[in-house]
Amino acid sequence: MTAQEFFKHDLFATNNGIELIEIREGYGKARLEIKKEHLNAGNRTQGGAIFTLADLALAAAANSHGQLAFSLSSHITFVRGSGVGDTLYAEATERYIGRTTGCYQVDITNQDGELIATFESSVFRKEQLVPFTLDHKENLCSQSK
Amino acid sequence: MTAQEFFKHDLFATNNGIELIEIREGYGKARLEIKKEHLNAGNRTQGGAIFTLADLALAAAANSHGQLAFSLSSHITFVRGSGVGDTLYAEATERYIGRTTGCYQVDITNQDGELIATFESSVFRKEQLVPFTLDHKENLCSQSK
Amino acid sequence: MTAQEFFKHDLFATNNGIELIEIREGYGKARLEIKKEHLNAGNRTQGGAIFTLADLALAAAANSHGQLAFSLSSHITFVRGSGVGDTLYAEATERYIGRTTGCYQVDITNQDGELIATFESSVFRKEQLVPFTLDHKENLCSQSK
Amino acid sequence: MTAQEFFKHDLFATNNGIELIEIREGYGKARLEIKKEHLNAGNRTQGGAIFTLADLALAAAANSHGQLAFSLSSHITFVRGSGVGDTLYAEATERYIGRTTGCYQVDITNQDGELIATFESSVFRKEQLVPFTLDHKENLCSQSK
Repeated sequence: MTAQEFFKHDLFATNNGIELIEIREGYGKARLEIKKEHLNAGNRTQGGAIFTLADLALAAAANSHGQLAFSLSSHITFVRGSGVGDTLYAEATERYIGRTTGCYQVDITNQDGELIATFESSVFRKEQLVPFTLDHKENLCSQSK
Repeated sequence: MTAQEFFKHDLFATNNGIELIEIREGYGKARLEIKKEHLNAGNRTQGGAIFTLADLALAAAANSHGQLAFSLSSHITFVRGSGVGDTLYAEATERYIGRTTGCYQVDITNQDGELIATFESSVFRKEQLVPFTLDHKENLCSQSK
Repeated sequence: MTAQEFFKHDLFATNNGIELIEIREGYGKARLEIKKEHLNAGNRTQGGAIFTLADLALAAAANSHGQLAFSLSSHITFVRGSGVGDTLYAEATERYIGRTTGCYQVDITNQDGELIATFESSVFRKEQLVPFTLDHKENLCSQSK
Repeated sequence: MTAQEFFKHDLFATNNGIELIEIREGYGKARLEIKKEHLNAGNRTQGGAIFTLADLALAAAANSHGQLAFSLSSHITFVRGSGVGDTLYAEATERYIGRTTGCYQVDITNQDGELIATFESSVFRKEQLVPFTLDHKENLCSQSK
C-alpha cells in the first residue's frame, strides 16, 4: 500500500475534502478547498476544519519514517480568518525526532501564501510499523502548490 | 433566534454529527457519537473530530454572554483512544473572563466518564453582539448526560 | 531522602524563592511570594517566575508515584497580573496517568484565590525510579493555604 | 532609554543571568549560560529557566514595534536536555502581527545549534507605547552567535 492509499483511509479527513498532496521523510502537505460545509456559525472556516487539515499533514510527516506515531498534544493559533473560495494548505515539518517522541511544526496558509494558523504537535512513536511504504520523495499530486 | 438554532449553522460541526446539548452563561456541552466516518487511518477517532467537538462546546460557552468571541489559540492533549460505538461529550467551563479576553477549559469524556482529551482555549471578545438570545439556563436537549 | 529534600535540589526554583508545600500521590502544591526580583520590565510578575512555580508543583505531582517523569510540553495561559506583595500558589492535579505518559493541570492562584494563570503539561514517564520516598500524604509545611 | 536598558529592568531574567543580545523590528534574541543555579533536582536545566530565556526574547520581539505587548498564552515543547556548561540561545521571530494581537515563534538552541525547545506565544497589543526607542537594527552585543 502506498502512503496516499493509507491516508485515504483517514475517513474524517477524506470525507471532509482534505487531500494529502505530498509526503516524504519528515514532511507532509495537505490541502482543503473551503466550501460552505466547512464554515462555523459565523460564516468563517471552522477551527476544527483547519485543525483536521493540519492533523493530516502532521500524521503524514510523523509516520513517514515507517514507525507508527500518534499525537500526544497539539497547539493551534489562529491568526487570520478564511472562508468560502479560499484554498488552505498545511505543511508539516519535523523539528525533532527521537526514539520515542517527535516534534512537528505545521503552518497553515491560504492560496496567497498568507499565514492562517500555526500548529505544533508532540507525537509518541511506537515500535509498531506503519502498513505503507514510501516511495523516495513521494509527491502524491502534481497540483501541489 | 435561540442559541441552538444559531449553532446549527455551524455546518462543519453539524454535518459531522456534533450536537450542542447544553448552553448557559459560561458553559457549553456538546456530543458526538463516533461512527466509521469519524475515524483516522488507524481506525481510531480522528483528532480533528475531537477538536471540533470541543470547539463547539467552547464556542457555546464563550459566546454565552452575548458578546461575540472567537478563539485565538487552543491546546489539546489526547489521553485515551476511542472508536466506533463510543459517545463523546465535551464540556466547556469558563476559567476567566475579562473585557476583551476569556479562558476556557474543555474536558472530553466518553460514555463511561473516562477522560479522552483535555482542551484549553483563549478567546478574544469583540464588542459586536451575538445574533441569539439565551434562555435562562437553556438546556437544549433532555438527553444530556 | 524525603520528597521535600529532593525538590530542594531544584536550585532554579529554590534560589528564586519557590517552595514545595505539599506533595502526595498525583498532587503537588508550591508557593512563591512575589518580590521585586520576580518582576519583568513592566513591573509585573515575570511569566517565567509563574511558569517555574507551576513547573515545581507539576514535578512533584508527576514524580509522586515513584517513577521518574519529565515534561514533554507545557502550555500556560496568563489571565490576571500580579506583583510585589502577592503570594502565588500553584496546585497540580493529575488528569491522566498511563504507563509511559501523564497529563497534569496546574492552577496558579493568588492569596485571594483568584486565578492568575492556568498551566497544562504532558509528561513522559521513564522506568527509572525517583530517589525519594513519599510519606503517606506528605504535607511538607503547615502553612499550606 | 534604549531597549537594552529597558529590558535590564526585567529583574527576573537579569538576576537569573539572561541577557538580551539582539532586538530589531519583529525579532529578539537572548542568551543564557547554564550554571548550577539553573538546574532542577535531576541536574538538568530547569524548564522555567528555558521558559524565561524564551520569554525575554519574545518580549523584545513583541514590543519592538513601539506598542506595549504582553503574553496571553505560551506553549513550550522540550526536545533535548541541557546542563552546566551549555549556552542556550532563544530567537524570537514574528509569525503574525495585527492591530491587537500577535503571534511569535521562539526557537531555543544550544551552542552547537541543536534544538533544545520550541516556544510559541500569542500576545495582546495595547495602545500604550513602550518607554524605549529602538535604534535601527539594534544589535545589543557583538557576542551574538
